[in-house]
Amino acid sequence: MTGSPATVTTALVLDLAGTFAFALNGAFTGIRVARLDIVGVVTLGMITALGGGILRDVLLGALPPATFSDWRYLVVATAGGLVAFAAAGQLERLALPITVFDALGLSLFAVTGATTALVHGAGTGQAVLLGTITAAGGGTIRDVLVRRVPSVLSSELYAIPAMLGAAVVVLAARAGVGGLVWTLVGAAVALVVRLVGVGFRLNAPRPPGSGPVGRATEG
Amino acid sequence: MTGSPATVTTALVLDLAGTFAFALNGAFTGIRVARLDIVGVVTLGMITALGGGILRDVLLGALPPATFSDWRYLVVATAGGLVAFAAAGQLERLALPITVFDALGLSLFAVTGATTALVHGAGTGQAVLLGTITAAGGGTIRDVLVRRVPSVLSSELYAIPAMLGAAVVVLAARAGVGGLVWTLVGAAVALVVRLVGVGFRLNAPRPPGSGPVGRATEG
Amino acid sequence: MTGSPATVTTALVLDLAGTFAFALNGAFTGIRVARLDIVGVVTLGMITALGGGILRDVLLGALPPATFSDWRYLVVATAGGLVAFAAAGQLERLALPITVFDALGLSLFAVTGATTALVHGAGTGQAVLLGTITAAGGGTIRDVLVRRVPSVLSSELYAIPAMLGAAVVVLAARAGVGGLVWTLVGAAVALVVRLVGVGFRLNAPRPPGSGPVGRATEG
Repeated sequence: MTGSPATVTTALVLDLAGTFAFALNGAFTGIRVARLDIVGVVTLGMITALGGGILRDVLLGALPPATFSDWRYLVVATAGGLVAFAAAGQLERLALPITVFDALGLSLFAVTGATTALVHGAGTGQAVLLGTITAAGGGTIRDVLVRRVPSVLSSELYAIPAMLGAAVVVLAARAGVGGLVWTLVGAAVALVVRLVGVGFRLNAPRPPGSGPVGRATEG
Repeated sequence: MTGSPATVTTALVLDLAGTFAFALNGAFTGIRVARLDIVGVVTLGMITALGGGILRDVLLGALPPATFSDWRYLVVATAGGLVAFAAAGQLERLALPITVFDALGLSLFAVTGATTALVHGAGTGQAVLLGTITAAGGGTIRDVLVRRVPSVLSSELYAIPAMLGAAVVVLAARAGVGGLVWTLVGAAVALVVRLVGVGFRLNAPRPPGSGPVGRATEG
Repeated sequence: MTGSPATVTTALVLDLAGTFAFALNGAFTGIRVARLDIVGVVTLGMITALGGGILRDVLLGALPPATFSDWRYLVVATAGGLVAFAAAGQLERLALPITVFDALGLSLFAVTGATTALVHGAGTGQAVLLGTITAAGGGTIRDVLVRRVPSVLSSELYAIPAMLGAAVVVLAARAGVGGLVWTLVGAAVALVVRLVGVGFRLNAPRPPGSGPVGRATEG
């Protein structure tokens, strides 16, 4: 599961793209939900963008996290926060970009997180789980900080698409057919399932007799 | 402080029992407090069950955490969440099982967490503290995710019983009389003190002039 | 960036002073905002005091954290919580000490956190960031536990002074003029900027058209 230079570069590009998407998402959330100033907006963008990868690296014992040894993550996360701050005045509504960039970050981090876990020698199940944690981790910290019940607990198909995307990448690698194609397939699967879930307000089954739906969000 | 195979097996069994108890507790909490769907319920059960041990292993530098190198924890935590989901429809009230399984997980993790810390060479005070963190950690993350003030801050004798149970195990080990008997004594002490605290609504003293009791819970 | 014994001792003293200040702050917050009992008050004081340093050490991979290998941190944090509990009855208002001790802890941890990061070989930008995380981390966990939007996101100039203080220390060390004087200058810069920010209710710019200020605090 070592990669050629081209594979490593691709993984880095996808990881930075996910970082940028989550930075936009976190910063827009800071503007819309919590009405933060520019420091708070950029800070929330950075935490959302970097939180999942930091969790992954801590759990892998790959310390210090990539964030702190590779300055590109910090630069991209900061840039995403600043771009979101500048763009917010131009956008009439932030709900759509928040949803789309969250789904993008989720999908990209599911596949890059799982790939990183494999590179560090994680087992099959562990790699799928770590991909899911990488994907959902930053958004979970974001939601805790702005005092929402995290999407991963309450929202339409959030963990499921991340798990599917990670599983595609891990199984392809185990089958010896890993590489860019399957990485993109995994990300696409995660993205489509997430957007369908949001679009049709799908939820997994609730327990019998648990009463009316009580999603606790103030979004 | 290395153990015989029998001791290690016993520690593993108790640790898995604590994992199962906390998974049931977290899943019931997800159903009752936050009305989550099945994915959210199982996710909250897993986080509650695995959170304390992950915190302990991160603080010990024993990475990756046992959760990720031993699949039995993942299986038991997932099973607990699914069992709770299936059982929820049969139970008229969830308050009692939530309390009991929380107390069980707290007691078992206090002693297994302290034992693990000793195995990794922690000092006496450190081992008691790490036992307490293992016991209270998962429930604290659970409460943050469903937006309650954590039990460890607000609830009737929560940290105290964990600390007592951990202290029994650590002091017995330091006195050279460690083993299953004292592990069970430690867990029993923690369990009894916790249940007495809940049953009689005991609290430690409040500061003079701090006004009426204002427990911030929506449980 | 190794230090003479005198430098190391000074760093330790400043670090313990920051620990004491944050323990007082966290404990007072537990009394005023959440009306906790003595166990909750001391626990919140300890988490506030030790949280930032633990985050820093986890991110540096310096495990177990200093807290667990040097008992003085635990003793000082516990003492701070107990002193705050005893003093609370004597104080008519807690708002002022909460603000002052938070600013003191923030300033001291910004410089000691950055210094620790340099000692562990962090780069310039990383050391400034880790100083900021050390300074803001404990208060962020405190705010999450008592269910407030963290100061680092919402409050008048919180991350900025920490970043400035850390930058002074890091740049001085890079210029080869590190030592006690610049450490104190860095802490003083952070403290003054923070207190000016609080006193004049300064905030960084908000996005255009983001509506009225909506600081979400119940303090």
